[in-house]
Amino acid sequence: MPVRTVSLPQGSTPAHRLHETVLTVTDPNGAPLAGAEVVVSQTAHAFAFGNIGFDFDFVPPTTDGRPDAATEQLADLFADVFNTATLPFYWGRFEARQGSPDTARLQRTARWLRERGVRLKGHPLVWHTVQPDWLLPLPTDEVERLLRERIRREVHDFAGLVDTWDAINEVVIMPVFDNGENGITPLARAKGRIPLVRLAVEEAREANPAATLLLNDFDLSSAYECLIEGVLEAGIRIDAIGLQTHMHQGYWGEDAMLAMVDRFARYGLPLHLTETSLVSGHLMPPEIVDLNDYRVDEWPSTLEGEARQADDLVRHYRSLVSHPAVEAITYWGITDAGAWLDAPIGLVRADGTPKPSYDALRRLVKEEWWLEPSRAATDESGRVAVTAFAGDYRLGVAGESLPFTIGPGDRADRDGQQTLRVTNSRA
Amino acid sequence: MPVRTVSLPQGSTPAHRLHETVLTVTDPNGAPLAGAEVVVSQTAHAFAFGNIGFDFDFVPPTTDGRPDAATEQLADLFADVFNTATLPFYWGRFEARQGSPDTARLQRTARWLRERGVRLKGHPLVWHTVQPDWLLPLPTDEVERLLRERIRREVHDFAGLVDTWDAINEVVIMPVFDNGENGITPLARAKGRIPLVRLAVEEAREANPAATLLLNDFDLSSAYECLIEGVLEAGIRIDAIGLQTHMHQGYWGEDAMLAMVDRFARYGLPLHLTETSLVSGHLMPPEIVDLNDYRVDEWPSTLEGEARQADDLVRHYRSLVSHPAVEAITYWGITDAGAWLDAPIGLVRADGTPKPSYDALRRLVKEEWWLEPSRAATDESGRVAVTAFAGDYRLGVAGESLPFTIGPGDRADRDGQQTLRVTNSRA
Repeated sequence: MPVRTVSLPQGSTPAHRLHETVLTVTDPNGAPLAGAEVVVSQTAHAFAFGNIGFDFDFVPPTTDGRPDAATEQLADLFADVFNTATLPFYWGRFEARQGSPDTARLQRTARWLRERGVRLKGHPLVWHTVQPDWLLPLPTDEVERLLRERIRREVHDFAGLVDTWDAINEVVIMPVFDNGENGITPLARAKGRIPLVRLAVEEAREANPAATLLLNDFDLSSAYECLIEGVLEAGIRIDAIGLQTHMHQGYWGEDAMLAMVDRFARYGLPLHLTETSLVSGHLMPPEIVDLNDYRVDEWPSTLEGEARQADDLVRHYRSLVSHPAVEAITYWGITDAGAWLDAPIGLVRADGTPKPSYDALRRLVKEEWWLEPSRAATDESGRVAVTAFAGDYRLGVAGESLPFTIGPGDRADRDGQQTLRVTNSRA
Repeated sequence: MPVRTVSLPQGSTPAHRLHETVLTVTDPNGAPLAGAEVVVSQTAHAFAFGNIGFDFDFVPPTTDGRPDAATEQLADLFADVFNTATLPFYWGRFEARQGSPDTARLQRTARWLRERGVRLKGHPLVWHTVQPDWLLPLPTDEVERLLRERIRREVHDFAGLVDTWDAINEVVIMPVFDNGENGITPLARAKGRIPLVRLAVEEAREANPAATLLLNDFDLSSAYECLIEGVLEAGIRIDAIGLQTHMHQGYWGEDAMLAMVDRFARYGLPLHLTETSLVSGHLMPPEIVDLNDYRVDEWPSTLEGEARQADDLVRHYRSLVSHPAVEAITYWGITDAGAWLDAPIGLVRADGTPKPSYDALRRLVKEEWWLEPSRAATDESGRVAVTAFAGDYRLGVAGESLPFTIGPGDRADRDGQQTLRVTNSRA
């Protein structure tokens, strides 16, 4: 008799996302519990469904030290879909006054999110934009010294809370960036791109050897390929490749998106779609090259735009989850309130109500790709198999709830085996 | 009394192009010849004023083994302005039938040009375009083996004739090139760009350790910067950076050109402007992205176009010669007959008559930047100073013509010293 299986419906789910583990449920003495009624349920995705956590950073706590009700409500919406938050470490804001980093406040935010089961990512350790003014008059070698210190400090201070970092952001344009004086561009020009990547990665690695370190870029042309190839040839270990996909000018479509993903997948590294946005209002005109150049007085979310955003979002997530190299998708905005460029890219309106895109993404992440609590009985050897997304799970049996994990290392075609032991002797 | 000086007028010539050498002229016994009448004249530029030598390769010799009169005439026009010819080594033409390389014929062309004082460059050893069809069915590792052999063979067979090579052409696009099946793109994709650069440079270097080896690209964006930085970080020694500037859509202007040159000058390597073209007819429409996509039945050279071409050419050469990092400018066509894309980019019309651009460039290269035969007398120590472009010179004295060189290593602010000894005892 085959092992009884609890499985996600395999219709539209890409096969490579489904991992199987075979659980053997035993009594406290290790004897298999045959024919036991169990309930298997999912508690978390391993895949990083991320969003920015900026809204929680920038909303000040109320006088009793807790966020206000609107913030709590937004956080509930956030945590019901997203398991990862990108926290802002822009140097110019984080340490606007030299020597006074915003560490304590952001640590509070980080802990508050972690308590809600949200994993954290820091963005970015090195970038040429949003730089402190006090860097400007300093000589390049002093900028380098301060930059190294700042990387070590943030990565050290947040180790255990934030273990994933955009180590360096937008290196392709960094040494030739000409849209605003800053202290980093001259450093990048003097050292070269690859030595600056090495600096960022080595300092961060030393401060937190367990950290996952990314390059991140909006330039998805051959320039980024050439940079990555140079970084890898130089023996610099990066852990994932970050790809920005701000789509204020419209969804690129599955074909273009997957062709791009394929180009970067050939380096054998996990791909993180680090910054995704889709507007629920009118589209930005196609002739705009630098998205920052488009400013409008009002950019309302519209009924039509919200329907399009929901459709595009579903297509985008489905296509990316279908690609085996993709391990993370971070959306760039939970609410329209204070959204980047004042664009209606949020999944929640400024008034706090969810848009259709929110509901659509929730259906994917928490319904279609999520194992609902499922009843089964163990076989005569006490076994039950579970086939579902990599993630955290619980098995309810004999009044107990036993945690287990389905790892991305497990494969549906190669049995993972785990034993779960009931502690209650009445079992 | 200061040393008497023969000098190029210093008005419009960039100071860094003027090098000084102080010659001491002696009798056969080494005693200085005071007050001797001398004539100093230039015989060659060190700066590479290049053009393609394809026309001499593709015009078949006549039955007596010599080129026809029209070819001889074109070669005279060529050699009066240009001191360097780029010879075609496109694999698909050079070895259209496997095992039958066109070595002997191209060696004849090479010797014929060298006899006329023309230095030679080979283009290109590795490229994904103009590939032999017989590569297509072969597995990647076999393509690699054959490519290595072909590089060694050509560089070895032409050593001493051709000592400068575009070792690899257009690497930025190479692994993602999708405009024609070829054997090289899959190899570039499998190995990566930098390993393929290493392959090309190492094979060529081994076959001719004295060779000057270039990367060459039309992609002058940050992608090429990233590639170069990766190549240099990987410890691959290249000798010069090749920059293509085909301007069928119009001259880019001095500011844009020099800003581009500045970006690539920061790697401290000599810059070769390897492929320059300016049309003397209507301009190609600006919306064309790949120049190869624009095909017209007729693209005539016009009076107006020829005037514009001449003006643009002078601006282009002046601005590039003004930049200290530039060591070579190669124009991409001597005659309109058979010109790339059938565009009127030649400096000579299809009927063999020079365009205004030819005369204008000749005026720069052989008049304004050229030391005409100049009379002087040595001082009481037998000395005469020469300030001019780096190159080959002769000093006529006492019925003799003594060769000397002004090297780019000489500096006007730091005296180079040379002694020229007359052999004729009547001096």
